[in-house]
Amino acid sequence: MKNENNSRVKVIPLGGMEQIGMNMTVIEFEDNIIVVDCGLSFPSDDMLGIDLVIPDITYLKENVDKVKGFVFTHGHEDHIGAVPYILKELNAPLYGTKLTMALIDHKLKEHNILKTTKRKVVKYGQSINLGCFRIEFIRTNHSIADAAALAIYTPAGTIIHTGDFKVDYTPVFGDMIDLQRFGEIGKKGVLALLCDSTNALRPGFTMSERTVGKTFDNIFSEHRSNRIIVATFASNVDRVQQIINSAYKYGRKVIIEGRSMVNVIGTASELGYINIPENTLIDIEAMKNYTDEQIVMITTGSQGESMAALSRMAASIHKKVTIKPNDTIILSSTPIPGNEKAVSKVINELSMKGAEVIFQDTHVSGHACQEEIKLIYSLLHPKYSVPVHGEFRHLKSQAEIAASLGIPKENIYILRSGDVLELGNEEAGVTGHVPSGSILVDGLGVGDVGNIVLRDRQNLSENGIIIVVLTLEKYSNQLLAGPDIVSRGFVYVRESEDLMEEARLVVSEAVEDCLERNISDWTKIKNVIKDSLNDYLWKKMKRNPIILPIIMEV
Amino acid sequence: MKNENNSRVKVIPLGGMEQIGMNMTVIEFEDNIIVVDCGLSFPSDDMLGIDLVIPDITYLKENVDKVKGFVFTHGHEDHIGAVPYILKELNAPLYGTKLTMALIDHKLKEHNILKTTKRKVVKYGQSINLGCFRIEFIRTNHSIADAAALAIYTPAGTIIHTGDFKVDYTPVFGDMIDLQRFGEIGKKGVLALLCDSTNALRPGFTMSERTVGKTFDNIFSEHRSNRIIVATFASNVDRVQQIINSAYKYGRKVIIEGRSMVNVIGTASELGYINIPENTLIDIEAMKNYTDEQIVMITTGSQGESMAALSRMAASIHKKVTIKPNDTIILSSTPIPGNEKAVSKVINELSMKGAEVIFQDTHVSGHACQEEIKLIYSLLHPKYSVPVHGEFRHLKSQAEIAASLGIPKENIYILRSGDVLELGNEEAGVTGHVPSGSILVDGLGVGDVGNIVLRDRQNLSENGIIIVVLTLEKYSNQLLAGPDIVSRGFVYVRESEDLMEEARLVVSEAVEDCLERNISDWTKIKNVIKDSLNDYLWKKMKRNPIILPIIMEV
Repeated sequence: MKNENNSRVKVIPLGGMEQIGMNMTVIEFEDNIIVVDCGLSFPSDDMLGIDLVIPDITYLKENVDKVKGFVFTHGHEDHIGAVPYILKELNAPLYGTKLTMALIDHKLKEHNILKTTKRKVVKYGQSINLGCFRIEFIRTNHSIADAAALAIYTPAGTIIHTGDFKVDYTPVFGDMIDLQRFGEIGKKGVLALLCDSTNALRPGFTMSERTVGKTFDNIFSEHRSNRIIVATFASNVDRVQQIINSAYKYGRKVIIEGRSMVNVIGTASELGYINIPENTLIDIEAMKNYTDEQIVMITTGSQGESMAALSRMAASIHKKVTIKPNDTIILSSTPIPGNEKAVSKVINELSMKGAEVIFQDTHVSGHACQEEIKLIYSLLHPKYSVPVHGEFRHLKSQAEIAASLGIPKENIYILRSGDVLELGNEEAGVTGHVPSGSILVDGLGVGDVGNIVLRDRQNLSENGIIIVVLTLEKYSNQLLAGPDIVSRGFVYVRESEDLMEEARLVVSEAVEDCLERNISDWTKIKNVIKDSLNDYLWKKMKRNPIILPIIMEV
Repeated sequence: MKNENNSRVKVIPLGGMEQIGMNMTVIEFEDNIIVVDCGLSFPSDDMLGIDLVIPDITYLKENVDKVKGFVFTHGHEDHIGAVPYILKELNAPLYGTKLTMALIDHKLKEHNILKTTKRKVVKYGQSINLGCFRIEFIRTNHSIADAAALAIYTPAGTIIHTGDFKVDYTPVFGDMIDLQRFGEIGKKGVLALLCDSTNALRPGFTMSERTVGKTFDNIFSEHRSNRIIVATFASNVDRVQQIINSAYKYGRKVIIEGRSMVNVIGTASELGYINIPENTLIDIEAMKNYTDEQIVMITTGSQGESMAALSRMAASIHKKVTIKPNDTIILSSTPIPGNEKAVSKVINELSMKGAEVIFQDTHVSGHACQEEIKLIYSLLHPKYSVPVHGEFRHLKSQAEIAASLGIPKENIYILRSGDVLELGNEEAGVTGHVPSGSILVDGLGVGDVGNIVLRDRQNLSENGIIIVVLTLEKYSNQLLAGPDIVSRGFVYVRESEDLMEEARLVVSEAVEDCLERNISDWTKIKNVIKDSLNDYLWKKMKRNPIILPIIMEV
């Protein structure tokens, strides 16, 4: 082994705080790179028309020969969602636990790149070697099964990446987080801890997933004559397990509804991560053969997503389910920031149909609160702290926790996307910055929509567009046709005919004035059109639509 | 007086649950109409480019001769904001308490209709007569001074409209809600209670405004060496008073920043609703003459509104204030549903500049919780309950409270906008429905943007627009110029030249094929252009921009 005292390992987040969701961290030592996670984020409100956002991997492409592989902490979209897009640009082997890899495989299949990608399932406690790194997968608890923390043994020391985790002493499926192994590794010395910050602002301890099961039992017991519909995250297999347990206990059949719910539960069931008693599942078509009190439906849409099953039921556009006053509907999740209004809308719509909607005490978080974060720090005793996974205020809160546990402030790093943090036993610091950012995916287009297009979309959405077309005669510059005016998203034209006609006259005069003065430069003519129309519309209506002059020549 | 047993009074909400904010209720008896409140709402996410939303008053215009006047419960935008727009269509006298009328006057002045409008200030305990109605203004507490409940004495019985209220036993300014008068009126018999439902889902009692003052004192005492910036609602004069009290106590000067803050505090100060010790206020320009520990700034932007002062400071675009690590910033409000993400953004930006951001225990609601609602019902003992002010789930929750207090379920009415509720001592019921809805205001245009325009804007914002222009020769139908293709909000054209050229060829072929087949119907040609381009773009990119073919004739 090299002299550990002088060697330094690099930690480079390529997504993170600036665009929550795009979790991707580069670990680099000399000619060796591994990438932890490869997540996507969903577009923010100003990314109009965008479907997905993935990380910019310019840095990885520039160092493609160094990249030994991708390692994954768990199978949520914000950790695996960008895989098919990134792999098309940079093929490297993938490593993760069983459920994580099954969910990734599903994506690769959809994108037709399953066969060309090297993949390996890793068990808890097992290690893999990638270049100079050894990576050990350690059992944790989270809101999806098979979550792992990664111990990355580098020539410069051990880096622990917790992934997303909580400490659940009584998990629904499998065992609790391997705190003993954390302690063992901590005793040997940890260079740096990259720890989940999502709940770093929340005091205390996150409740066990099992507590939600008790709530379900209570609700089922109090609503024996109602049809019960439960909406939750498709990926929360343990939650679904508990709903099925309550259903079985109270003699109800279970219907799984919603595309992603059917997919994930199908995969989880094949892999043995969920236990569904025989004759419990029924098809939605068979619902009519059962009475209300014999049925539980488990569905998507707990976040008010407009296309999800529950939202369609609420809006009376679901083809197979009609909400009625005898329904008891449980929203088993808390709104993710930004979804509050959509969730309220669904609750209101369901209530208006007479259904009872229950959303209290039906969810626990999958992320560690302050006391759990302290526990992990205390087991690992890292030299350096690098809070990950959260907005700036969450990262900062974890930094404060780390400091309160005795880590010197100068050893705590809150990184921005692209920051190059070099860590060694002797010294550490941010030594550079590599390209990073968000690549927008719109339909099949990856990266062909950028700021200029988004600014246009924003403008179009607020003010609409007015197109002015005219035809000039070549050489003579005579006006042969037009100017005609067409608009979209501006005003309702039939009711504003006078206005549009007046606008056309304004433009017409301006153009003719131009031509009379023998101005033949099209750019000038277009500017005159824009200015005259702009002035008119602002004075008349205090609005400024996009004005697009088009000149044709015959 | 008429025989009360047979007479019936109508209650018609013209805004409300469907569009939160547009509070406006018609009370009608034979040839007499009064209108309670006249609020606006802010556009929902799907109302792209819209500035404001006001109620549709078709029903009032159809019954203009009956309208005796508008009475106001308090001066918040959701109760007075539509006044200038509505008055332009329907002039009637306005009645409210002092601060409420001062805020309305300010609006009328801006719209140049102050002089043409009859207005009257009413004191607590005073009554006015409008047609067959007598209306008494009763003191309540709310997050703005001069809030009133209205006792509307009609030939069919007494209707109480609480307005927005809470029960504050220790208000900062003025006296507590006149519970005795509620009791007195209740003893005489109340036909119907229209009661605030905002917090009807929250158990318990809303804390007194005064408790926030104690929090401010604590924060000021713990941050003696920091510059303190407090953001809150401009209209919450009592909150501002308490910040000024703490500032004075700790020897700090006060700067008022943000247009609406300056306006409202100016008005409140003129009317004597706020008490500012001499030599306490300083101009923002004078800030440089003081040290951090000598200053408190009170500002707008507590909801993350992008143009408000605090948001501009957070984004480093405020001209006069630069945030620095020694700043302590207090957000004295809780995010209104829908604003959560914007508030988080501001907090993150401020934190990144090193400032400390405090947002816990610095706000209390202005609305009654469940125990206060029960108190009002118990004092008034109404025959009928009509929950107002809230989403459906809030109205429903109040309905459940009313039922729990012994009001028969058939006497509780949750109304939709436009419902005509007839109330009599013998019987009651929804007997009809009048036109109602939302009128969109965009710039100076009132109602010229409707669903079609909004759908276009939505489409434009998600997919952009492609304009195809071509010039045909009259009679011969020869293609003289084009087809040319121009796009906005679709792709970044310089990087997608090949795609745009290929698209042009697709259209060109389709058009020429048309012309060769002697198709001269422009509608047909336009459809061919749309179809061919649509197909091409969907196959190639899975996108569907708006396609707008324009044909010119020479």
